[in-house]
Amino acid sequence: MSRNLTLLTDLYELTMMQGYYKTNNHKKVIFEVFYRKNPFGGGFAIACGLEQIIDYINNLKFSEDDISYLKSTGIFSDDFLDYLKRFRFTGDIYAIPEGTVIFPRVPLMKVVAPVDQAQLMETALLNIINHQSLIASKAARVCFSAGETPVMEFGLRRAQGPDSGIYGARAAVIAGCVGTSNVLAGKMFDIPVMGTHAHSWIMSFNSEYEAFKAYSKLYPENCTLLVDTYDTLQSGVPNAIRVFKEMQEEGIKLKSYGIRLDSGDLAYLTKRARAMLDEAGFAGAVISASGDLDEFLIESLRQQSAAIGSWGVGTKMITAYDQPAFGGVYKIAAIEDENGNFQPKIKISENTAKITDPGDKEIYRVYDENEKIFADLIALRSETYDETEPLELFDPNETWKRTTLEPGKYRLRKLLVPVFEDGVCVYERKSTRQIRDYCAKEKETLWDEVRRLINPHEVHVDLSEPLFNLRNEMLHKHSKNKIPDDIMM
Amino acid sequence: MSRNLTLLTDLYELTMMQGYYKTNNHKKVIFEVFYRKNPFGGGFAIACGLEQIIDYINNLKFSEDDISYLKSTGIFSDDFLDYLKRFRFTGDIYAIPEGTVIFPRVPLMKVVAPVDQAQLMETALLNIINHQSLIASKAARVCFSAGETPVMEFGLRRAQGPDSGIYGARAAVIAGCVGTSNVLAGKMFDIPVMGTHAHSWIMSFNSEYEAFKAYSKLYPENCTLLVDTYDTLQSGVPNAIRVFKEMQEEGIKLKSYGIRLDSGDLAYLTKRARAMLDEAGFAGAVISASGDLDEFLIESLRQQSAAIGSWGVGTKMITAYDQPAFGGVYKIAAIEDENGNFQPKIKISENTAKITDPGDKEIYRVYDENEKIFADLIALRSETYDETEPLELFDPNETWKRTTLEPGKYRLRKLLVPVFEDGVCVYERKSTRQIRDYCAKEKETLWDEVRRLINPHEVHVDLSEPLFNLRNEMLHKHSKNKIPDDIMM
Repeated sequence: MSRNLTLLTDLYELTMMQGYYKTNNHKKVIFEVFYRKNPFGGGFAIACGLEQIIDYINNLKFSEDDISYLKSTGIFSDDFLDYLKRFRFTGDIYAIPEGTVIFPRVPLMKVVAPVDQAQLMETALLNIINHQSLIASKAARVCFSAGETPVMEFGLRRAQGPDSGIYGARAAVIAGCVGTSNVLAGKMFDIPVMGTHAHSWIMSFNSEYEAFKAYSKLYPENCTLLVDTYDTLQSGVPNAIRVFKEMQEEGIKLKSYGIRLDSGDLAYLTKRARAMLDEAGFAGAVISASGDLDEFLIESLRQQSAAIGSWGVGTKMITAYDQPAFGGVYKIAAIEDENGNFQPKIKISENTAKITDPGDKEIYRVYDENEKIFADLIALRSETYDETEPLELFDPNETWKRTTLEPGKYRLRKLLVPVFEDGVCVYERKSTRQIRDYCAKEKETLWDEVRRLINPHEVHVDLSEPLFNLRNEMLHKHSKNKIPDDIMM
Repeated sequence: MSRNLTLLTDLYELTMMQGYYKTNNHKKVIFEVFYRKNPFGGGFAIACGLEQIIDYINNLKFSEDDISYLKSTGIFSDDFLDYLKRFRFTGDIYAIPEGTVIFPRVPLMKVVAPVDQAQLMETALLNIINHQSLIASKAARVCFSAGETPVMEFGLRRAQGPDSGIYGARAAVIAGCVGTSNVLAGKMFDIPVMGTHAHSWIMSFNSEYEAFKAYSKLYPENCTLLVDTYDTLQSGVPNAIRVFKEMQEEGIKLKSYGIRLDSGDLAYLTKRARAMLDEAGFAGAVISASGDLDEFLIESLRQQSAAIGSWGVGTKMITAYDQPAFGGVYKIAAIEDENGNFQPKIKISENTAKITDPGDKEIYRVYDENEKIFADLIALRSETYDETEPLELFDPNETWKRTTLEPGKYRLRKLLVPVFEDGVCVYERKSTRQIRDYCAKEKETLWDEVRRLINPHEVHVDLSEPLFNLRNEMLHKHSKNKIPDDIMM
């Protein structure tokens, strides 16, 4: 299902493109995608969406249809439209791989391309990264709160349109969910799909018992019975136990089986249901729970010792209900000069947190001896680092806070990897399951204190000394001379 | 761009379908879509998404690819998969037209079809209606708060994936936005697209003045200059005035022109900018504002007499930030018996608000003498109403509250219209602009007290006497006999 999303852009990207074309400006620029604040009050985010960005760029082409439509707006001249017909992406893209744990301020994607190309792509890149990173970050929190118990994604009916359900399911599985109810996402990304039956199934039979019985005959291998249709403890659980017993008597091996609750006081009901199942000899029956769950409710239910072995999470995860936008931005870091060298650019703001980091950069992740993340270091690409030397880090806001890491006590990893070179994809594409497995390892590099749902420890994102000095020089130059040509807001 | 979304469903819809197939259950059922609570604490919602539902149903077909995928899951038998190959929708659908003002409890769509067909469609119908009605309802609030001043949608970069941006833009325009920044939505739905330039345009020139000048030469007919790049009042507005003056001197007629602010204290800055523009003789210059706006911020800025003639609204509208899910549900109202008659079904819940209204129903909108909405009346389809007779309405919760409307003092309108009959679309499809115009008239039928952002007047949704009695009988029967066969939860 390859879609041409070339027109998935804001009109101003196209009016600016025409402006660059008409003023004969084809300078190369460096744009960076980053975010400023961890979502949900958490201590991290998960990068997600790169696969779809590769698809987007590979399909980036103005069709005849697109050109006719643009012509019909009356905004664009024929010579520019001719230029668009021949348009293709010729630049370089670097990105932090999908499934990687990320922190604020760190560029997770870098676009190096002629200004018109880089400008066109802004909107779609942000749309895709903002959505998928949002849901992946939310799902990682939900899965952390569930601990070893599996979480299933099933929010499709409340997602913000088809793509939101499809790519949201993908992001949720990457970040740790064991599967999704979304069949199309299962097909598109080869991820596990899960589901049993709804209340309407029960109601289409003359009794709950008959509905359970029919279901058990149809799906003996994976028999989860929804027990809250009439009365969970008086009717649902006893009927489920009756059916499980009859299955045993018929010689069916109960492998994957259990009950599901979708309403009521989940702490009380699951504990009572667990006792009833255990007493009847069905200690292997899994109790699944759902119903407006999120990471906080799951944590609370686990603290109450609710007997829940599997979680179904819908609306709150697929919409990232408590913060439904990620806030990734796309800012210029450098512009090519007449000699073909990149000149750093900085964006100034009254709000200090919105001041950008200038220049062509490299990101180093610093691991400690335990292979946990110690800090991220943003440096200029021209710098080199040697792990056999001590590494001195300092806080870019409180510069007197300094740490020196001795050789052997730390490890460096470059986070940005090449994705496109001269317009050609050079990235070895991975399956969603591979990305999921990679993400599971990534999550292991977080200290528990960083995973904490509320008031987590903040991972340091430091600037190298040369980058810090460059940034400071540019800020001081700005305060002397209000509008120099390397300053923007 | 027709997409086959047949697999856009929860797995359990398919396992239940196979169950209905295997148990040879092809009974017709009536499912209804409705919602329980107005979003955003408001007094109404706007129905939206019907066009995409028609597309979805017209494209509903399991492809060879879909069948192979389903086979690969190991869940489905070959005879059922053969059945799916031949699957097509053969039922009836009734819906409240898009752009109609709606209220809680009122069925906005009714599906009358064999149980397996109706079950399959649940997830996609809810996904589409929940998303678009959410954004349309949000946009209507934003537009009410802006009064006569136009609102533009430009949230694509923060929307939850491509569809969320595309169909969200459509919903926003239907509900009152004058246009969108989203070019693909503009092309797909023939709705106005808008936009000028970003800060990066300013920054690609050696000075703000040069950037403005270049822009004015490129787009003299629609020249909105972004003035907050360096310093709005010290630099941006004076440079804009300089360029407008030069355009005048060159004999260019200034028609659609002005400035845009995207940051800072919008109340203070726009009032100052207005004074500067007026003093320079540019009273016709429109001041546009953007920056994390929603209905409450717009209302506050208008109360502060901010001089804003046009609003750009992004993240908060396209994600429905303060309530990112609509909460529409899909419930059975009746099941065909052996004689081909529909037997009413009711869903019981401990939570009284979750008890459904049983039976095959018709919805009447009751207008008062001013052509404003007086109430909605949910009745059984077998009832008839005559406008030459008095109409007695009563509150279904507080039944002593009764009103009688005399003939000539009220008007009735049936809200549900046929969309599919025997699987064939019978609905006269409308353009998005037509739906937008219809919605504008619909919004006029709301009393100001219902439009109010906070604590609005609640429009009455009443049950007819026969429906009320049927519902009561079924509830009493339930309290005597715990699990009769027409009760479900």
